[in-house]
Amino acid sequence: MDREQIEDYMGLALAEARDAAVIGEVPIGAVVVHAGQVIGRGHNLREHAQDSTLHAEIMAIQEACMTLHTWRLEDCDLFVTLEPCPMCAGAMINSRLRTCYFGAPDPKAGMAGTLGNLLTDARFNHQVQVVAGVRQDEAAALLQDFFRGIRAKRKANRARQTPLKRV
Amino acid sequence: MDREQIEDYMGLALAEARDAAVIGEVPIGAVVVHAGQVIGRGHNLREHAQDSTLHAEIMAIQEACMTLHTWRLEDCDLFVTLEPCPMCAGAMINSRLRTCYFGAPDPKAGMAGTLGNLLTDARFNHQVQVVAGVRQDEAAALLQDFFRGIRAKRKANRARQTPLKRV
Repeated sequence: MDREQIEDYMGLALAEARDAAVIGEVPIGAVVVHAGQVIGRGHNLREHAQDSTLHAEIMAIQEACMTLHTWRLEDCDLFVTLEPCPMCAGAMINSRLRTCYFGAPDPKAGMAGTLGNLLTDARFNHQVQVVAGVRQDEAAALLQDFFRGIRAKRKANRARQTPLKRV
Repeated sequence: MDREQIEDYMGLALAEARDAAVIGEVPIGAVVVHAGQVIGRGHNLREHAQDSTLHAEIMAIQEACMTLHTWRLEDCDLFVTLEPCPMCAGAMINSRLRTCYFGAPDPKAGMAGTLGNLLTDARFNHQVQVVAGVRQDEAAALLQDFFRGIRAKRKANRARQTPLKRV
């Protein structure tokens, strides 16, 4: 896959992330690609579904499995805007994905190079290639804008709740 | 929780594992317990659903989230017959489970003490207590019997397919 294709697919994952932001979810998006076709998409739905497992990658992998009628996603590549957490990295190993392309690193839970790398750990029965930093600035900016917006809302709410001082 | 209670809850996870074996799935079962009530159950359904994410623990966690209407399973304990893989250990961290009780260790993918321990890794924003070896022999025997059965079936099939030698 050439750089332009990789960036285009990451563009679709970024679009998924924006869909999450619109509904107030932390903006993370993912797509799974097989033979030039997008066969799975997902964005974070943890708050709406109140389900801790509904990360973007899990949803994209589940849809990809449904599309191909198999849990073995051996010739498939996953594009995700944020470095995967342990759960999502584990799901990639379990589905035997070929490559994980990610955008921004995650210093808090990233297990594809930052805190460790489950994907390339030779002790598991499958390894997933990792390509980091694809459209990293856009992926990171989406997250920064989202959290900046939340902080601003909280500040405004606190200001509204503080009673005016009587002179 | 006393030893008898712990073993009783593991008994329910073992029953889930047997349900998996009956339909030809690798026999692994899990339950989630909150305030003395079982609020989530699951057994491995990877082959039937052709979905790499449908491990026993994921299904039990998803049901528990639905039951409590929250992704935060903070006062909940999970009982699973086999040591969790990276995906399931990650899901336990993400759901902020209190304790993971498991039966048999998994030398191939166990990430609650065998190949590593994601659950107690202080770098993540939540740690899950681990209690290993609960009714370990029964959990291991279920798996051994299952794989012995598969090997016997394969051998029988091969024997049927081998043409008889003409004398």
